Amino acid sequence: MLYSKIFSKTSKTTASDADSVNARLLTQAGFIQKQMAGVYIFLPLGLRVLNKIENIIREEMEKLGACEVLMPTLTQEDSWQKTKRADLDILFHLKGRGEAKLVLNPTHEEVITPLMKNFVASYRDLPFSAFQFQNKFRNEPRAKSGLLRGREFLMKDLYSFHADEKNLDIFYEKAKKTYVNVYKRLGIGKQTFLTYASGGSFSKFSHEFQTICEAGEDTIYLCDKCKVAINQEIIDIQKTCPICNGSDLRQEKAAEAGNIFKLRTKFSEPFNLTYKTAEGKDNFVEMGCYGIGLSRAMGIIVELFHDDKGIIWPENVAPFQIHLMALGKEKNVAEEAQKIYQQMQKKGIEVLYDDRADVSAGEKFAVADLIGLPYRVVISEKTLAKKSVELKKRTQTKADLIPTQKIIKTLSSYEP
Amino acid sequence: MLYSKIFSKTSKTTASDADSVNARLLTQAGFIQKQMAGVYIFLPLGLRVLNKIENIIREEMEKLGACEVLMPTLTQEDSWQKTKRADLDILFHLKGRGEAKLVLNPTHEEVITPLMKNFVASYRDLPFSAFQFQNKFRNEPRAKSGLLRGREFLMKDLYSFHADEKNLDIFYEKAKKTYVNVYKRLGIGKQTFLTYASGGSFSKFSHEFQTICEAGEDTIYLCDKCKVAINQEIIDIQKTCPICNGSDLRQEKAAEAGNIFKLRTKFSEPFNLTYKTAEGKDNFVEMGCYGIGLSRAMGIIVELFHDDKGIIWPENVAPFQIHLMALGKEKNVAEEAQKIYQQMQKKGIEVLYDDRADVSAGEKFAVADLIGLPYRVVISEKTLAKKSVELKKRTQTKADLIPTQKIIKTLSSYEP
Repeated sequence: MLYSKIFSKTSKTTASDADSVNARLLTQAGFIQKQMAGVYIFLPLGLRVLNKIENIIREEMEKLGACEVLMPTLTQEDSWQKTKRADLDILFHLKGRGEAKLVLNPTHEEVITPLMKNFVASYRDLPFSAFQFQNKFRNEPRAKSGLLRGREFLMKDLYSFHADEKNLDIFYEKAKKTYVNVYKRLGIGKQTFLTYASGGSFSKFSHEFQTICEAGEDTIYLCDKCKVAINQEIIDIQKTCPICNGSDLRQEKAAEAGNIFKLRTKFSEPFNLTYKTAEGKDNFVEMGCYGIGLSRAMGIIVELFHDDKGIIWPENVAPFQIHLMALGKEKNVAEEAQKIYQQMQKKGIEVLYDDRADVSAGEKFAVADLIGLPYRVVISEKTLAKKSVELKKRTQTKADLIPTQKIIKTLSSYEP
Repeated sequence: MLYSKIFSKTSKTTASDADSVNARLLTQAGFIQKQMAGVYIFLPLGLRVLNKIENIIREEMEKLGACEVLMPTLTQEDSWQKTKRADLDILFHLKGRGEAKLVLNPTHEEVITPLMKNFVASYRDLPFSAFQFQNKFRNEPRAKSGLLRGREFLMKDLYSFHADEKNLDIFYEKAKKTYVNVYKRLGIGKQTFLTYASGGSFSKFSHEFQTICEAGEDTIYLCDKCKVAINQEIIDIQKTCPICNGSDLRQEKAAEAGNIFKLRTKFSEPFNLTYKTAEGKDNFVEMGCYGIGLSRAMGIIVELFHDDKGIIWPENVAPFQIHLMALGKEKNVAEEAQKIYQQMQKKGIEVLYDDRADVSAGEKFAVADLIGLPYRVVISEKTLAKKSVELKKRTQTKADLIPTQKIIKTLSSYEP
């Protein structure tokens, strides 16, 4: 894609109300723009990252055997009365025609549980799982930390339905592994830990995935030996590692990158979601729910991977792999760059080509560092004289000279 | 995909409150489920159709040179005060923290126009265009006709920005052609006509694309010679064909499949979106907007293409191309079907395999007709004896016997 055609503009001035590293860098680099506190516009670069994250999660959900659906934002308040959640502090309320009381869904148990009544009749219809990518709306007291705590944000939510607790447990363990894979593929696997948290009324624990990160709102106690953590909210009732029982725990700031929860029959009871057992008995369906915030994940990635010059995207979620640029105003340099750009496109290499003619080398370098694509390819009079191009990883300081005729092959072998 | 694993269930009973053919058939066939009046859940089959429509539109928008963005649902009411649209009857209002007045966007001029102030400074930044796929919220007095008039619905909206009216006109004509391509690819090109409609305060006309269809809410007057129409709303001021000036017009019921509008400076003025001309003068940016409702398009397609047995999907938007089934309980039939299913998947043929063992041939046929995939492939003892399978188009009544070893090749050549 041509940089001159993209709806994006890097900015040297700090967004005046940027409350975090991720908001500041993503705004400066032209990925997002703030609409209001906790509500962001995704510009083309930001949307590409969001789509990369979405595709990774979708692949992992499908491997888990879950079906994709799309549930609405608007829902009758009635459904939230049924589950005694209509008074939740973060719920947005509004009125429809005829003074109908509506809410904007902050999560979708109140939609999918009654929906399943149409599809689950007998034990033969179970187990079953469905997921979606859908905006969530939460009227947070304080929206803050950029994409880390939004009032409108994109989330993947997965719901599972089972005949009994044992079957729920089996799926729950599989989902845990799926989540580990997701974080690994997003590039934050090493910093993200399964964390024991409050379980609510039906289960002893729920599980979060917490990513160690200064901007995070949570505090966790990590067992380095077992690679699991305890959320501060339950440290009084769980003082030692739940795996090894050790008390050598490291306190860290962390951001919640996802959570999974055994709902058991908390929602199937109020909605009377039952199934017939093989013996003809009516049982409540056992449920689990599993969430990952996509825009939040994007924020966490930036919090983890940046330096004083800008963002450093992991390859799997980078909006493009290559930042290509031509330096100087010589016609032959621009022609060579254009040629390489077309070759890259033909090979399916994702390339952002800074095709601006009236911009200095220094500015182009600064923009490339700020946007933070994994690889930078530079063409200039100097490199042309050596029939070469300069190739530099975003994480390296020194560039390598690569013969022009080998650059496509070299880059193709780099693709994630 | 296996029919037994999909989150879908056809139903012989009519949805009690289905108000239209599209709502009835899409609900019965397991594509959608009503959440409340004008608000629908998209089940896996329905979401696949929506994604097909989205991909076709995205390809055409990118050919037009537009950038994809994603704007939010929540917006400050202030922005709507600025354009004097805060009192629009269909606007959903709600309160945020600190009694902040918010609205749910029914369209996004109030978001993209102030956004562009960050990106447009000089005539060099123009022309520019951006599009998105985003849910719209409209508190319609009466939500009706299934997916044709929703309160929450998925829409593609495109906005264009120009230095002068002439440049807007050029883009507007290109967008018209793009829209014609979109409807052709969706399979409704022959029934969809460019229609002159009310232009508002800045232009003589706006343009709609109206699809002739009994369930439609509009009345149009069609010139068969020029293939353009006039919306009834302006028939008093435009009594003859705007192209040939002829008065031989045919009255038809139609559903609006899209609209395009020269906004001129209607939004750039209140938001003070200006650019510097080459001479250093400040001019208001000229704007156009271009919308297509995706869920509505899905509803229109079903209104046009169905019979008394069910839906008949055009190939480009069908959730799968092939409905595969095995008849009878013989093991070798099921094995052969499984083999063909795997071969199809390997070849990238989109196939829905009705793998249910305990269901009669009659019921499987009825489900296939109701769901309405373009091709049906049947394997039975009878066809196996002839080393063949039965292939039938949804639009045909008679099936052809195709040698089993040729079926994959035959189907591959059918792909749209």
